[in-house]
Amino acid sequence: MPQSPIRKLVPFAEEAKKKGINVLHLNIGQPDIKTPQIALDAVKNNTIEVLAYSRTEGSEAYRTKIAEYYDKNDIHIDADDIIVTTGGSEALSFTIGSIADTDDEIIIPEPFYANYNGFSTALGVKVIPITSTLEDNFALPSIEAFEKLITSKTKAILICNPGNPTGYLYTKEEIKKLALMVKKHDIFLISDEVYREFTYDGIEHYSILQEEGLDNNAIVIDSVSKRYSMCGARIGYLVTRNKEIIKTAIKFAQARLSPPTYAQIASEAALQTPQKYFDDVITEYVKRRDLLIEELLKIEGVKVARPKGAFYCIAELPIKDADDFAQWLLEDFRVNNETIMVAPAAGFYATPGLGKNQIRIAYVLEEESLKRAVNILKEALKSYIS
Amino acid sequence: MPQSPIRKLVPFAEEAKKKGINVLHLNIGQPDIKTPQIALDAVKNNTIEVLAYSRTEGSEAYRTKIAEYYDKNDIHIDADDIIVTTGGSEALSFTIGSIADTDDEIIIPEPFYANYNGFSTALGVKVIPITSTLEDNFALPSIEAFEKLITSKTKAILICNPGNPTGYLYTKEEIKKLALMVKKHDIFLISDEVYREFTYDGIEHYSILQEEGLDNNAIVIDSVSKRYSMCGARIGYLVTRNKEIIKTAIKFAQARLSPPTYAQIASEAALQTPQKYFDDVITEYVKRRDLLIEELLKIEGVKVARPKGAFYCIAELPIKDADDFAQWLLEDFRVNNETIMVAPAAGFYATPGLGKNQIRIAYVLEEESLKRAVNILKEALKSYIS
Repeated sequence: MPQSPIRKLVPFAEEAKKKGINVLHLNIGQPDIKTPQIALDAVKNNTIEVLAYSRTEGSEAYRTKIAEYYDKNDIHIDADDIIVTTGGSEALSFTIGSIADTDDEIIIPEPFYANYNGFSTALGVKVIPITSTLEDNFALPSIEAFEKLITSKTKAILICNPGNPTGYLYTKEEIKKLALMVKKHDIFLISDEVYREFTYDGIEHYSILQEEGLDNNAIVIDSVSKRYSMCGARIGYLVTRNKEIIKTAIKFAQARLSPPTYAQIASEAALQTPQKYFDDVITEYVKRRDLLIEELLKIEGVKVARPKGAFYCIAELPIKDADDFAQWLLEDFRVNNETIMVAPAAGFYATPGLGKNQIRIAYVLEEESLKRAVNILKEALKSYIS
Repeated sequence: MPQSPIRKLVPFAEEAKKKGINVLHLNIGQPDIKTPQIALDAVKNNTIEVLAYSRTEGSEAYRTKIAEYYDKNDIHIDADDIIVTTGGSEALSFTIGSIADTDDEIIIPEPFYANYNGFSTALGVKVIPITSTLEDNFALPSIEAFEKLITSKTKAILICNPGNPTGYLYTKEEIKKLALMVKKHDIFLISDEVYREFTYDGIEHYSILQEEGLDNNAIVIDSVSKRYSMCGARIGYLVTRNKEIIKTAIKFAQARLSPPTYAQIASEAALQTPQKYFDDVITEYVKRRDLLIEELLKIEGVKVARPKGAFYCIAELPIKDADDFAQWLLEDFRVNNETIMVAPAAGFYATPGLGKNQIRIAYVLEEESLKRAVNILKEALKSYIS
């Protein structure tokens, strides 16, 4: 199993904290946004007396409500097209396990969420990276580039939309191109859409489940973690109209018996979250993003792609080795007794050598802290380079 | 992925229920015992505002308290020897993933919990069965028989103690024999001890973690599911003093981020459950077991091994095909508008052809229902055979 790109920095962050240093975390995807009250209350008011297994695929009632949620978002599916999982992580594991055998291949645009590699490796499936670039805002690589990588072993293309770690939001045209290609080669298109509610600048998210004629090829990974700031619930879902995939994935689901019961109560209630909650969250993230990008671009030598979704961006720094820089920030650099923890981006690339001068920044801090964090980055770069 | 032995019966049970038939479930390991109030209350009184990821390996506080629980049970381990998982299922997945590669082998005495096969297959690991017999009460097969099966591919022996589906409780002597053997061949001994609190007739459970000199070989799978009637929590743990295994298993754990937060709150509180709760539960199960075995032995042609732990037994029936019998019970047989659902035992054997005339009975029904259920079995056998 590959190591998480952040894990090896954790001891240095802990060491700094022990010394009384305030560490501002730009490295994690854990939002500081409050969980909707309606979800918290549902758990506090539960009337369970025997905490029994739930249904393997999630309760009928919950899956019906999820289908209604998608319906409101112009995605028309049945409750039976959904398997409720223990986090989006498990939805992805079940998907890979259901479509690929040992030594099969999945093509993923890099940089990508590091755990995609972890799940694939655990199941003996090989990740084939295709590089997207900061210069191109991390847009979809050309279809020609994809086709060069497709072999008889290729079982799927996996995208994250909007993207972690890039914040890139695929356009309808890009999705249509991908759809054509996967149909042509009779492979799957897996889309991790856990950040689907987080799109900015008035651009609407276009799901692969909205694409006609893709019913047998499209598999969506979804999760309540970021949508409702409920990372600790561990509830996600696998969504596909392909009945064979549902049938196979349910066998994996049966082996682990059921998704967690309390978390399903919270997640079912969360579907009633008022629209204002999302509007406020989006407003907050846009403010943070604008502040972050504006301040980053003021720093000499820093390049950044403007994210259109999620709450991450990749920044290129005028340094050689972001791993070393990230560790140095924690060990040696302080401004007013504060420092920052960033995620070196090399861990999001499968191609060796790529992303070494890049970091991922999660804008999950409120404005004042974010401002201080970028200032620390600016001062740190001056000091580190000289 | 292999199918669960019960799954294909589910539609027939649902059909019967639709017709207004009362189906008594002897097939499931879902106890009807109430969850300890202290655990339920902890969740109802939680003060979470942001439902954040917990620590990948489970909170320090919770793991410390688990170590104290083991300490009281004469098992001396540190909090760092524990990884909290999403159910015992995940603990087993992480264990197999950590010790074996594709095509490696794990030896398991059969009949065994069917999902052992599922997890192994999903990871490309081969299950090698070694048969234990009803005639021998499902005791440990001879060490000679084990040694015949050990090859360079063998990575571990996996036992369930006390056993699902057999109810067999391994003696200290049997554990010592296994310990000697795994040390001799330098392989792991994995013990699923989720039923450890359920031992009867005054016999004490002997854990592989109590065996001296086995620190590097012993891995225990544990869970709160049955102990506190909290199957829906989905909390288990992997316990080993082997630091390398902990290190590798944590990488698997990181990929799925964290175990569910609410469930950890319930599980941590459950550790404060008063001893009286367990005493009452044990008394109840012993009563049920005694009733069940006594009534089963009254039926002509039925053989059964007297369980010393857990809440299952394997019964051999005077029939040829328990799959067919189980389906017939649901489709065609009723006593006073009631029937029973049983688990055909062939699904618990990996060797083809074995267990075809056996069923697993879970004594998770209260006495009156259990009595009616055994009566239905008796009447059904008369009618089915003639």
